[in-house]
Amino acid sequence: MARDDPAAFRRWAEAARARADFAALGFVGNPLNRAAEKRNDRDFIALALADPGAQILAFHQLAPMFALAGPGHHGSSAELLWLGPTARVLAPRAEPIFLGLDAQARPHFALDFGRRFALGESPLAGLGDFFDLRAAAGRMTSESSAIAGTARALIDWHARHMFCARCGAESQVASAGWKRICPSCEAEHFPRVDPVAIMLAVHGEFCLLGRQARFPPGIFSALAGFVEPGETVEEACQRELFEEAGLRTGAPVALFGQFWPFPSSLMLGLVAPADGMDLVIDREELEDARWFSRAETLAMLAGAGQGFGVPPPMAAAHHLIRIWAENPIG
Amino acid sequence: MARDDPAAFRRWAEAARARADFAALGFVGNPLNRAAEKRNDRDFIALALADPGAQILAFHQLAPMFALAGPGHHGSSAELLWLGPTARVLAPRAEPIFLGLDAQARPHFALDFGRRFALGESPLAGLGDFFDLRAAAGRMTSESSAIAGTARALIDWHARHMFCARCGAESQVASAGWKRICPSCEAEHFPRVDPVAIMLAVHGEFCLLGRQARFPPGIFSALAGFVEPGETVEEACQRELFEEAGLRTGAPVALFGQFWPFPSSLMLGLVAPADGMDLVIDREELEDARWFSRAETLAMLAGAGQGFGVPPPMAAAHHLIRIWAENPIG
Repeated sequence: MARDDPAAFRRWAEAARARADFAALGFVGNPLNRAAEKRNDRDFIALALADPGAQILAFHQLAPMFALAGPGHHGSSAELLWLGPTARVLAPRAEPIFLGLDAQARPHFALDFGRRFALGESPLAGLGDFFDLRAAAGRMTSESSAIAGTARALIDWHARHMFCARCGAESQVASAGWKRICPSCEAEHFPRVDPVAIMLAVHGEFCLLGRQARFPPGIFSALAGFVEPGETVEEACQRELFEEAGLRTGAPVALFGQFWPFPSSLMLGLVAPADGMDLVIDREELEDARWFSRAETLAMLAGAGQGFGVPPPMAAAHHLIRIWAENPIG
Repeated sequence: MARDDPAAFRRWAEAARARADFAALGFVGNPLNRAAEKRNDRDFIALALADPGAQILAFHQLAPMFALAGPGHHGSSAELLWLGPTARVLAPRAEPIFLGLDAQARPHFALDFGRRFALGESPLAGLGDFFDLRAAAGRMTSESSAIAGTARALIDWHARHMFCARCGAESQVASAGWKRICPSCEAEHFPRVDPVAIMLAVHGEFCLLGRQARFPPGIFSALAGFVEPGETVEEACQRELFEEAGLRTGAPVALFGQFWPFPSSLMLGLVAPADGMDLVIDREELEDARWFSRAETLAMLAGAGQGFGVPPPMAAAHHLIRIWAENPIG
């Protein structure tokens, strides 16, 4: 029925989504109040930076600082290490990025310690260490990964947008890290967010998964691609499935979204009913793509995929695959 | 029920969406096959540009060229004027942007004739004229506005991204207009698409509409704001409603999307059940915001709003308002 009855497919997708548990999805549910109206208030920001309750998250080469958990570190939870306002002396030239206020109204900032910062020679040695956010996110709460992800996206955006794209002059940080202004042509530049369609094509008892050469061995995931100017998410979904796998589909249904801070994507997750199962794989984009049965997919989700696996629960693909696998189409 | 039963609100929203007619929504349904895999194929692009069937859409100051319809022009449909491949001689230095192939495999391109082009002195005088796309879109088919919107977004992106944001050097057009490459630092830059949440807060028999000072007199619309790094569309929806109107809401439901080429936004339309009706309006963002009853809203949709109106059917806001107004929450 999936392909021939778009309304029934949509009803199935919406009912399956309603039963889904997104608690483990990473980088969502940032608990901070962004207090965006304060970003341009220089007095407020200056006072907030001097507030004894201010919380500072340090970054080094895009990796945030985590508290050292002592022995048994691996497998345990990963906790961000929040520093007090005096940490600013360790990065005197860094522009603090205002992340918002917590429930106690404590101001939170991100601070890029810079490429030359040497942790071992600093007063922070032994307190914490910088870890790659992508590797650590599976051991963080969603809320905590959402804060760190927001900060990482902004720090990375500044690093890659030091110059004005309109006139080439060096631009300056403004709005407590949420804007850059060109002193030459006065253009304003805002942090970029790239919408991405991530989609599961399904056909009967099978779903389409692919892998890129950079994936760990045996891992297959939902296909994905950037939304281009001039198309909706659903149009991008259908285009990408045709470009990467030669597959035509009926109307896709968008199920949920996620921010993904590598570097700054808005993931929009869809399911789409495929017209058939013949594949023409774009080997420049994908190392492989193939249909997996519901039984295979359930085994992969359970970590019993006999050499095959799916991305972890922090990733949107995991939830797309689970929503389909656990909810047979009537 | 809306606020106290999120599942029931979602069911209402999904059922209301299923009855909606999006035929008049602008800038969606681009019928061209983008043939993205050909963008880097220089031989293909060179042959396509010389193809006697090639179709060229000319732009001047971001306005596409329309066929002159003769007397009675106003109110009639607006048709894009597609030129043949020889039109390139009129803009010898412009970089053609490859828009894709139509059903007859004819290649379509956009060409920016540049600021100094003088239509009246050109061989095209009398054939067509350049009109603002936003003003003309209501008299175009969605498919035709989608093609012109894609082209406008790309031309505008090039004009505002002549320089490498990473190093400041002048960058170069690549991939038939779908990329810029920096010859100095080799960074690649892709056309930007900004996700925007556009949302209707509803409470009982009322919906919240606002207006900006730049709107035509009496026009009220759904509130909207850019999705920031670190948040989902739903999170952006709730944040914006609080920032701009002081309103807290339950879980928003995303209903549909639209590309909006002014300059390059992915509009994501939501409804959200408001906790109450007290408003704290941000007068920097909004000239006014107020609750409109279902009866008032239906009159505004019908063009009988007694001095009040809503955006036209080409806009996402129109459809959000209509979906709510025509489907009372049970």
